Amino acid sequence: MKKSVGAKTIIYPTPVLIVGTYDKSGKPNVMNAAWGGINCSDPPCVYVSVRESRYTFDNIVENEAFTISIPTEEQVVEADYFGIVSGRDADKLATTGLTPVKSDLVNAPYIHEFPLILECKLIHTVDLGAHTQFTGKILDVKVDSELTDSRGNPDIKKINPILYDPAGLAYYGIGEFKGQAFSIGKKFK
Amino acid sequence: MKKSVGAKTIIYPTPVLIVGTYDKSGKPNVMNAAWGGINCSDPPCVYVSVRESRYTFDNIVENEAFTISIPTEEQVVEADYFGIVSGRDADKLATTGLTPVKSDLVNAPYIHEFPLILECKLIHTVDLGAHTQFTGKILDVKVDSELTDSRGNPDIKKINPILYDPAGLAYYGIGEFKGQAFSIGKKFK
Repeated sequence: MKKSVGAKTIIYPTPVLIVGTYDKSGKPNVMNAAWGGINCSDPPCVYVSVRESRYTFDNIVENEAFTISIPTEEQVVEADYFGIVSGRDADKLATTGLTPVKSDLVNAPYIHEFPLILECKLIHTVDLGAHTQFTGKILDVKVDSELTDSRGNPDIKKINPILYDPAGLAYYGIGEFKGQAFSIGKKFK
Repeated sequence: MKKSVGAKTIIYPTPVLIVGTYDKSGKPNVMNAAWGGINCSDPPCVYVSVRESRYTFDNIVENEAFTISIPTEEQVVEADYFGIVSGRDADKLATTGLTPVKSDLVNAPYIHEFPLILECKLIHTVDLGAHTQFTGKILDVKVDSELTDSRGNPDIKKINPILYDPAGLAYYGIGEFKGQAFSIGKKFK
C-alpha cells in the first residue's frame, strides 16, 4: 500500500558535486550541490542548480564556467562543510587545507585532492524558480591515475564516491555490485 | 597525478529512474533513464533527458506528463530490461509481469511493485543536442507505507534503491552511512 508524502524533492540517489568557481577578485570558491547530473550525451553536458543568493551564482554567470570535483568517502566532512558556509564569509579551501588548481580549459578552479574532476563551459541557463539550472558542456574529465580500471576509465570502487539522500539528509557510500547494464536485462528478451 | 580521460559523461552516482508514460493508444510504457535528477526545490522539479528517437519522447510531449518509479535492488534486472528494449517492439510491463497504475494526478502510469513513485507535470523542455531535457513539476511522491522512517519519510535503507555507474556501465547498491548532512561539516566552522 502506497502512501503520499507530498510534493517533495526526493529521488535516490543524488550526487555530491562540489562546484568550483572564481569570484570577481579571483578568489576560488566551492559549494556542495546535490541538485546536479548529466543531462545530455552529445555534447556531453552536466548541470548544477544554484540559488541566486549563493556566492557561486554570480561567479558562474560572470565566468561562464565551473568545475565539478567529486569527493571520495574520506572527504565527506569537507564536502558537507562546503554546503554549510558561504564563500562570502570564509575561504573554504584554506579552512579545510585543500588546494585549488586553476583549470587550463576554463576560468574555474578544481580541488587537487579530490579524485574526479569535470571542467565545464556554461552553455545554457534556465531560471526554474528557487533554483537556476546552469548546464555546462563537459570539456574534460580528469581522474587520479591510480584510480582507473584496466581500460583507463575511472573505477568507481577505487574512487569510493559518496551519495546524498535528500529525504534523510544523509551521506552514504557506494554498495555492492548488482549487475552489468545493457546485459542483465536480456533475461527478459 | 591526474590524467585526462576526455570529454565523457561521467559523474558518480547517477540514479536509475524508470520513466512511465502512455502512448497515443493508451498503452503504458516505461524506460530507464540515468540522465535525470532534481533541478529545483520550489516548485519541486525533477528532469529526465530523453533521445528524440525513444518511444517515451512523443509520449511525454503529447501528455505533458510522466512518472518516475524507483526500483529496489531486487528489481535491477527489470530496470535494466526497460533500457534495452523499445516500447515500439514490446509491452515491457507485461513481459516483466509488473503492474501499471494510472496516476490520479497526471496522465501517466507508474509501476505498482516499485517502492518509490513521483508524479510529474511537464513544465519545461529544452533541446540540448542528443538529448532533450524534460523538467516536470513534482505533484506528489508516493512510497510503500512500510518503507518509511519514524517521521513518515521514505527510508533509503528500507527502500534499498540502486545507482548507476556510467563509466563502468554497472549497477550498485547503497553502501554504509557516512554522516548527517548540514552537520558533520560543522567541524570546520
